[in-house]
Amino acid sequence: MAVIAVLGYGTVGSGVVEVMNTNKKSIESRTGQSIDIKYVLDLRDFPDDPVQKIITHNYDDILNDESVEVVVEVMGGINPAYTFVKSALQKGKSVCTSNKELVAAHGAELMRVAKENNVNFLYEASVGGGIPIIRPINRSITSDKIEGITGILNGTTNYMLSKMTEDGMEYDDVLKIAQEKGYAERNPAADVEGHDACRKIAILASLATEKTVSYDDIYTEGITNISKTDIEYVKHMGCAVKLLASAGFTDGKVWARVAPAIVDKDSPMNMVNNVFNAILLRGNMLGDVMFYGRGAGKLPTAAAVVSDIVDAVKHKHVNLGIGWSEQKQELESIDSISVRKFVRIEYDDIDRAKSAVKHIFKTEEFMEYFDGELAFVTDKAEEGDINDRLNMLLNSEGISDILNTIRMEDMEA
Amino acid sequence: MAVIAVLGYGTVGSGVVEVMNTNKKSIESRTGQSIDIKYVLDLRDFPDDPVQKIITHNYDDILNDESVEVVVEVMGGINPAYTFVKSALQKGKSVCTSNKELVAAHGAELMRVAKENNVNFLYEASVGGGIPIIRPINRSITSDKIEGITGILNGTTNYMLSKMTEDGMEYDDVLKIAQEKGYAERNPAADVEGHDACRKIAILASLATEKTVSYDDIYTEGITNISKTDIEYVKHMGCAVKLLASAGFTDGKVWARVAPAIVDKDSPMNMVNNVFNAILLRGNMLGDVMFYGRGAGKLPTAAAVVSDIVDAVKHKHVNLGIGWSEQKQELESIDSISVRKFVRIEYDDIDRAKSAVKHIFKTEEFMEYFDGELAFVTDKAEEGDINDRLNMLLNSEGISDILNTIRMEDMEA
Repeated sequence: MAVIAVLGYGTVGSGVVEVMNTNKKSIESRTGQSIDIKYVLDLRDFPDDPVQKIITHNYDDILNDESVEVVVEVMGGINPAYTFVKSALQKGKSVCTSNKELVAAHGAELMRVAKENNVNFLYEASVGGGIPIIRPINRSITSDKIEGITGILNGTTNYMLSKMTEDGMEYDDVLKIAQEKGYAERNPAADVEGHDACRKIAILASLATEKTVSYDDIYTEGITNISKTDIEYVKHMGCAVKLLASAGFTDGKVWARVAPAIVDKDSPMNMVNNVFNAILLRGNMLGDVMFYGRGAGKLPTAAAVVSDIVDAVKHKHVNLGIGWSEQKQELESIDSISVRKFVRIEYDDIDRAKSAVKHIFKTEEFMEYFDGELAFVTDKAEEGDINDRLNMLLNSEGISDILNTIRMEDMEA
Repeated sequence: MAVIAVLGYGTVGSGVVEVMNTNKKSIESRTGQSIDIKYVLDLRDFPDDPVQKIITHNYDDILNDESVEVVVEVMGGINPAYTFVKSALQKGKSVCTSNKELVAAHGAELMRVAKENNVNFLYEASVGGGIPIIRPINRSITSDKIEGITGILNGTTNYMLSKMTEDGMEYDDVLKIAQEKGYAERNPAADVEGHDACRKIAILASLATEKTVSYDDIYTEGITNISKTDIEYVKHMGCAVKLLASAGFTDGKVWARVAPAIVDKDSPMNMVNNVFNAILLRGNMLGDVMFYGRGAGKLPTAAAVVSDIVDAVKHKHVNLGIGWSEQKQELESIDSISVRKFVRIEYDDIDRAKSAVKHIFKTEEFMEYFDGELAFVTDKAEEGDINDRLNMLLNSEGISDILNTIRMEDMEA
């Protein structure tokens, strides 16, 4: 019998208990032994829930119980999760976590501590919720060099952008609906500003480079500037706007970025709607492989955590030796990464405006759907160069403002 | 150093050598040791290829060389592959194969022999080419019960159906193009009659049930009856026709089927076009997870084989203990599985025809795009019942023929 403890009886924690109970028989046939949840740590009591029998308010009960093999950290946040996890590993207990902040901030150190203590630190649920992605990268994509990663890693923003596209709604109205449905927090910054997706692409880029990609270094732009009007242009183009978390690993350059992007109708990313997530990996031999599923939600996330519990129990005192080191991975400035941009300009003289665009961006293909403005797509060039030319454009005669710019997703090109 | 041998220097075999050479450094860092391809078995010689130095025409050279740890079987076909693989396992060598016929026909036996000899029989490339699917099912989806599988598992037919849809072409014309492009064989039966997809769903269903699902028991219908006219109706419906390989595992019933199906525009299967493949798994906790990528081709398939080589080298003399038993899994008749069907009828009296449909199928929604015929979608009922009612319809006044029927894909409903 393997004894485990769950830290946190919130959404994911209660999901873990539910998955373990519902699929007890098949899980135990996979681990070859029964699994006993001996403790659930929470500050609260749950008098009407059978879990109350095993609730503890004191982490030391778990830490000092030598029978506990696996600690399941589903509290979220950096502290006290970091302290709890590190001390568990030091006591020779494996840890499974769904906590992307913790993994992004302290992953390499916790993997090292796990290795030193011959146990495992597993984090399948930290990216893509229920989508198997960490384990496939570690154990399936072993013959390939990953050249690029593009992910829709945040369900809240994907729901909002899908809803804006389907129903022609403005950002603020969709945010209200997302909050009512419980998809967005009252303070939605972590989602809509891209911070959540940033943590997740930091984890994936760290896995790909086997070094620590710091999320502070990743250029991050949210969806708050995407308007109903932008979406209308994009629909005319037959495309969709998605919040993409991307990273590239070719020609010795490593870069990462979180930003809205216009996705072509032929891209597999285009059909990833509502709260679904997807991660597309480009391997130098495999080509493109995409993993799609529910990126959040109680049971999908809990199922991913439980798949880690199965692994931890099967590999007691066998460190799986996968992850990344504490060595810092430097990132290229995204100014040096090639992009195309969709650009909306406001003009006071349409002929002069078009002439300036033609002169600076060598295009004569204009989209004219609204009074007083037009839009076009730039050529492909380093982003710094594109931005310099956009400044030139803004100072050109006939043009009164640049209303918005959105990168084109060109991974498929 | 790990010593390996490759059986067959065709498309996949030469791809395996190329992947091993191109990604030598990263592969060896994953296995923790160098890998030496000591033999390539082929009947032919390759005088202009560096491989010639290690070509052998005699399998006994490999079998009797105790230094060979892993045998890579990429010859295809049942014989002599089966004899070669079994004898390698009996000699304590692990085997990695891309051979779906072999895995579908003898998988359980070869897994048992591998276990008895404390080695591994691995077959990631046998389903979905480069898409990681076997290993994710075995090692990631470990906390879920799989309730359903739906796959686009044959790139040739998916290319043909995509082309018929995009270009409004007839089946015979598209088949010629597919043959010219090398996507279809001169004798295309294995692809277009569904036999290839049938082998692959047999493997996936065996993994899900952990018993042997025999491909002979699987109802299999190809795409040869799909016409340009059918596709036009389906486009009017905003849907697409795909050759789906499906299996279900709920309520104690196990069933499997290969047949064309009409896929709704909101299904993630809808966007799987051209030679791409995809496998959607429905877990009782995870919900829907989809794996998408290149289902065939030299390098993607070879990359999957090499990921098995990495696993085999890492787990020398450690049987991973995954797969299915030789016990036969009985399948339900698909007559007892609920479906809806799209039905095209030819009439000699439109009013009587509609009245008969209305009486027998309780629908008044008709599609009328072509002279002398109309189409409708049935209610959802057991397929046997639907077929009985279609016979009644055929004998009804006003109706001269049933031109075609295509199942609706309702997994997403």
